Amino acid sequence: MILTVTPNAALDVTWTVDRLVPRASHRVDQVRERAGGKGINVSRVLASLGHATAVTGLAGGPTGRLIRADLRAAGLRDELVPVSGDSRRTLTVVSREDGDATVLNPAGPRIGPAEWDAFTAHYARLARGADVVVLSGSLPPGLGPGTYAELVRTAAAAGARTVVDTSGPPLLAALDARPDVVKPNAAELAAVTGHDDAHRAAAELRERGAGAVVASLGPDGLLAHTPDGVWRAVPPRPLSGNPTGAGDACVAALAAGLAAGAPWHRTLCEAVALSAAAVVAPVAGDVDASVHRRFRTTVTLVPLEEPDAPHVH
Amino acid sequence: MILTVTPNAALDVTWTVDRLVPRASHRVDQVRERAGGKGINVSRVLASLGHATAVTGLAGGPTGRLIRADLRAAGLRDELVPVSGDSRRTLTVVSREDGDATVLNPAGPRIGPAEWDAFTAHYARLARGADVVVLSGSLPPGLGPGTYAELVRTAAAAGARTVVDTSGPPLLAALDARPDVVKPNAAELAAVTGHDDAHRAAAELRERGAGAVVASLGPDGLLAHTPDGVWRAVPPRPLSGNPTGAGDACVAALAAGLAAGAPWHRTLCEAVALSAAAVVAPVAGDVDASVHRRFRTTVTLVPLEEPDAPHVH
Repeated sequence: MILTVTPNAALDVTWTVDRLVPRASHRVDQVRERAGGKGINVSRVLASLGHATAVTGLAGGPTGRLIRADLRAAGLRDELVPVSGDSRRTLTVVSREDGDATVLNPAGPRIGPAEWDAFTAHYARLARGADVVVLSGSLPPGLGPGTYAELVRTAAAAGARTVVDTSGPPLLAALDARPDVVKPNAAELAAVTGHDDAHRAAAELRERGAGAVVASLGPDGLLAHTPDGVWRAVPPRPLSGNPTGAGDACVAALAAGLAAGAPWHRTLCEAVALSAAAVVAPVAGDVDASVHRRFRTTVTLVPLEEPDAPHVH
Repeated sequence: MILTVTPNAALDVTWTVDRLVPRASHRVDQVRERAGGKGINVSRVLASLGHATAVTGLAGGPTGRLIRADLRAAGLRDELVPVSGDSRRTLTVVSREDGDATVLNPAGPRIGPAEWDAFTAHYARLARGADVVVLSGSLPPGLGPGTYAELVRTAAAAGARTVVDTSGPPLLAALDARPDVVKPNAAELAAVTGHDDAHRAAAELRERGAGAVVASLGPDGLLAHTPDGVWRAVPPRPLSGNPTGAGDACVAALAAGLAAGAPWHRTLCEAVALSAAAVVAPVAGDVDASVHRRFRTTVTLVPLEEPDAPHVH
């Protein structure tokens, strides 16, 4: 079973307007609401591929109830822990004219110490039944940067492998707990290491404790530093679309590969194909089965030298 | 008692961002949620001035529950009728950099015929206890343009006076039912009559059935066509700020004047002063008591000729 953790679970709301114009008043014509947060999207992808998965994290208030109702409707196993604050609603405003999306992300409810204790107790029990634990997304107010490091240690003690998809100080702190995989994107990698060379930055994260570093480079595919080698994994052609969905699908593939004990080269091809299949789907957590099928046999793996050896920028 | 009707009750949500940029991703730092819709704002102003008031209209779902909880918290008499759909959340995104506000208005839940029947039965009972009925705002899906006309007739049959604050076809249709007062703004007046001369347009609405027409002209005050005469009512100095709040405060003053049987010149001075007191308050439904006090004795009333007489553009 693959357990996903979404500390800052959200109701992802999508509104459609003719065109978003600052300072104007807009009629909203189409409303879509769906349980979200990165971990929940990862579980959606895993469930759609037939993997056993469960969703945990923190959710509360009227919005938390809507999140849980949506998980039930989607047939996902709901192991969220209740909190007293109201969960956040993230809003994506899509302009009908050009399809452009503008995103608004509230911080989420403040988590109290007793709520965190209740969560960690429940999480430790769940981790004992998990092959892989996925820790995804931003942290709500009240949780410190060491949060993911603590959860990685708990999972490891329970015998589960770990995938961490976050950014900034929580990502840096998590490395000390030696997660099996971290999946930053190019911007997160640069922000956390302070240098723009993704290859060097990925090597640095491995040195700092990550078992493998898989960096998503948008339409250019993945850069992977793994115990089996260093690769660029490149899709047969670049696809553009929904980047949130692509990152979450990539994480789903990495978790599924870890759970199956698959060799890294196979996991990376699957991760690129599944990302591409998510990029073309309009909603995070969905994947296009035909793109997935077509791409999984046509990904190119380019072996790279370790960056310690001389390399060209 | 002054009864306000908000057919499309809303949770008015205000989010603060650094600056709203289309296509970008934004951190939302401050969240404020409050029961809204024009009629509810009118009741807030009336209650703050010590008038007896009750709120009716339609509200449902989790958002409807939040609206009703907020009315309770504000000490307002809640006579909303439940519907099965989820009430809308209107969103105002305020840019911290310059204070600019961008507004997003969903259409609201569809109202079914049985829900409308339940509402009209409750409304007819409430109207019998009301001196004045205020009918405010947009109509949710499922309600036709004749809705306000029907409610004006029910109120008149119950012996209540009526104030209508809406626009477009529902405003035009309401005139046939001979409401005591309609309060369009300049743009609504032009849209509904097809000509830009507010003076002529207001006269036309009276000819079509309105007992009085009070048009709000933003910082320039009011233009009033009443049975007692035609006036411009001008504040001592123009104030800019929150126009939604100003319109609702103006309607509150008109309703209070009708309820008290006050002469029109006094009601108009009060309406201008209360609008000014609302314009400077950041949230619709609030008024600044000191501006209200200072302005109510310093409004200028300019008597005007009927527009049939020759007049200068």
